[in-house]
Amino acid sequence: MIHIAVLGFGVVGSGTVKLLHDNAESIRRRCGEEIRVKKILDLRDFPDSPYASLITHDFAEIAEDPSITVAAEAIGGIHPALEFTLALLRAGKSVVTSNKELVAAHGTELLAEAEKHGAYYCFEASVGGGIPVIRPLKEDLGGTNAIERIDGILNGTTNYILTEMKEKGVSFEKALRQAQENGYAEADPSADIEGLDACRKIAILAAVAFGRMPDVSAIPTEGITRLRERDGAFAERLGYAIKLIATARRAGEGKFSAAVRPCFVPREHPLYPVSGVFNGVLVKGNYVGDVMFYGRGAGAEPTASAVAGDIVNIAEAGKGNRFSWTDAAEGEMLPPSVFPHRYYLAFSGVSGAAGIPAERTSAADGETAVITPPLTRDELAALQTEILSRGGEVLSVLEVL
Amino acid sequence: MIHIAVLGFGVVGSGTVKLLHDNAESIRRRCGEEIRVKKILDLRDFPDSPYASLITHDFAEIAEDPSITVAAEAIGGIHPALEFTLALLRAGKSVVTSNKELVAAHGTELLAEAEKHGAYYCFEASVGGGIPVIRPLKEDLGGTNAIERIDGILNGTTNYILTEMKEKGVSFEKALRQAQENGYAEADPSADIEGLDACRKIAILAAVAFGRMPDVSAIPTEGITRLRERDGAFAERLGYAIKLIATARRAGEGKFSAAVRPCFVPREHPLYPVSGVFNGVLVKGNYVGDVMFYGRGAGAEPTASAVAGDIVNIAEAGKGNRFSWTDAAEGEMLPPSVFPHRYYLAFSGVSGAAGIPAERTSAADGETAVITPPLTRDELAALQTEILSRGGEVLSVLEVL
Repeated sequence: MIHIAVLGFGVVGSGTVKLLHDNAESIRRRCGEEIRVKKILDLRDFPDSPYASLITHDFAEIAEDPSITVAAEAIGGIHPALEFTLALLRAGKSVVTSNKELVAAHGTELLAEAEKHGAYYCFEASVGGGIPVIRPLKEDLGGTNAIERIDGILNGTTNYILTEMKEKGVSFEKALRQAQENGYAEADPSADIEGLDACRKIAILAAVAFGRMPDVSAIPTEGITRLRERDGAFAERLGYAIKLIATARRAGEGKFSAAVRPCFVPREHPLYPVSGVFNGVLVKGNYVGDVMFYGRGAGAEPTASAVAGDIVNIAEAGKGNRFSWTDAAEGEMLPPSVFPHRYYLAFSGVSGAAGIPAERTSAADGETAVITPPLTRDELAALQTEILSRGGEVLSVLEVL
Repeated sequence: MIHIAVLGFGVVGSGTVKLLHDNAESIRRRCGEEIRVKKILDLRDFPDSPYASLITHDFAEIAEDPSITVAAEAIGGIHPALEFTLALLRAGKSVVTSNKELVAAHGTELLAEAEKHGAYYCFEASVGGGIPVIRPLKEDLGGTNAIERIDGILNGTTNYILTEMKEKGVSFEKALRQAQENGYAEADPSADIEGLDACRKIAILAAVAFGRMPDVSAIPTEGITRLRERDGAFAERLGYAIKLIATARRAGEGKFSAAVRPCFVPREHPLYPVSGVFNGVLVKGNYVGDVMFYGRGAGAEPTASAVAGDIVNIAEAGKGNRFSWTDAAEGEMLPPSVFPHRYYLAFSGVSGAAGIPAERTSAADGETAVITPPLTRDELAALQTEILSRGGEVLSVLEVL
């Protein structure tokens, strides 16, 4: 029998407890042992829950219980999740988590602490909800492939909003309100719509793929709040969908770049059909080519599936994952502008697109939209200057994936 | 240093040797040990290959070399792959393979033999080429989710043919010829186009998901040779694509069903955009919901990626996968007809579709096509009888996914 503790009895914590109960028999068959939740830490009481008797308000009851060998941290945020995780790892207990903020900010330190004490720190649930992506990236592709790039739709809230805007023609504000009403967006949605949530997740994927955790604040991050409805209309006409894409790319020996920004995604691209609250992660390896992982990126049950997967892998001897990475040093992170890209450019005040290099063009209501050939940042800047010098105004610039 | 042998120096075998050479440094970092190919078994000589000196024609040189601990079987087919695999496992050597035919026919016996001798028998490369699917199904979703169903596009040749027919309007014969010219189809393409290759793969996925390996000959299997060009035209008009879908479903306690057949796949379905030589595997778990794995299902490099992944996992202490399943007993496999389905039905000779239950209808050139509501097999049979009794002729019946 393996005793575990669950920290935080919110959406993810209670989902995990429920899964471990519902699927207890198949889990026992898989590990050869029963996994039992011994304690649940929360500030509140849950008198009506079938697990009321397991609730404790005292972290020490878990930290000092030698029978508890694994804890699921589902508190979220940095404090006190960091202090609790450190204390548990130092006591030799393994910790699994869905807490992307903590992994992105303190993962390197926590992994080192876990290794030092013979424990595991696992975080499959921190990226892509229930989609298996961290472990496949490490165990199936790790070492056997040089990972060249990762492109992900990693935030279900923004993808839901963009899908509603595209398919139902609603405004950003209305789509956001719907997302909140359906429980897909927080009351304060800024971490989602400003791209920070996706930024933390791509940082984690970059660390798994490249062995170095970038500083989240060093990743150029743009959310979806500055998109114009007309950009969506042009995307549709030109054969694209606007998606919030988080990217990490190898950029020469020991270097990589990362970014989060809304992109024009071509119809033939594997991420194009990833709609609504679904997430998709496209990984390109030097041997495997393009591989995509797709599924529900959030929600109690999918996230619980990933949390439970980590617990079960730790419980099954030898299956736990030890990651080791370092924090990225200065100069290891390059700006995405080192790569040339196609761009979507919308402008007004220039008669037509004469002289503007364009692979596709559309015009409506006094605006012209073009898809440029691949341009360096310098070439893009020169093009913008050219439009200005011809009396025009640049209204939107988005990267084409 | 870990010494391995490669059996068969064809597409997969030579791809594996090349990968282990090209990515040697990252593999060494991953496992902490170098992996070196010591012997390559093939009937032929390869005087111009950089690996010519490793070629042997004598299996005993591998079986009796105590320094070789892992072998990659890339011979294909049943004989002599079965005898070689058995001999290696009995000598305590682990075997990894891309040989779906052998795994589907003798997997149960070979896994038992591996376990008995403390060795591994791994076959990630046998399904979906380079796409990680066997290990995620076992390690990420295994135990923590009751797998409810698996639907896969598992054969790249047929998917290429169907995609060409749909997108370029070419005939089956022409698309097949193109596939052969591009190296996507064998000179004798029957195992692909008759559905047998997909059938073996869904049998393997069913065994991993449900713990019992069905007899391949008990799985209702229909290929793509009987499709009419007009079925493709109706699919297009009604909002579907025709794909060869392999399905395994839980069907009550201890029972499951499996089938391979061309289906009408709705535009909103995650498998709809899986085109050309790509494969996609959609897995539904009771907690994770829908998860899809997508990538190149064949080819030297993707398949080598999966073969190498198994080798590296065995080399890394504790990471090897021991599967245990039994052969399905009588009564465990149910026909897919236990589930009601929507159907595409094309018929002629009945005036319109009056009285035929239809969610969508299309008509052209004297034929009527309908998408029925969900019907049991009995209801479908009754409907076909009804059409006949009204002087009509049923021209096509396909399941809607």
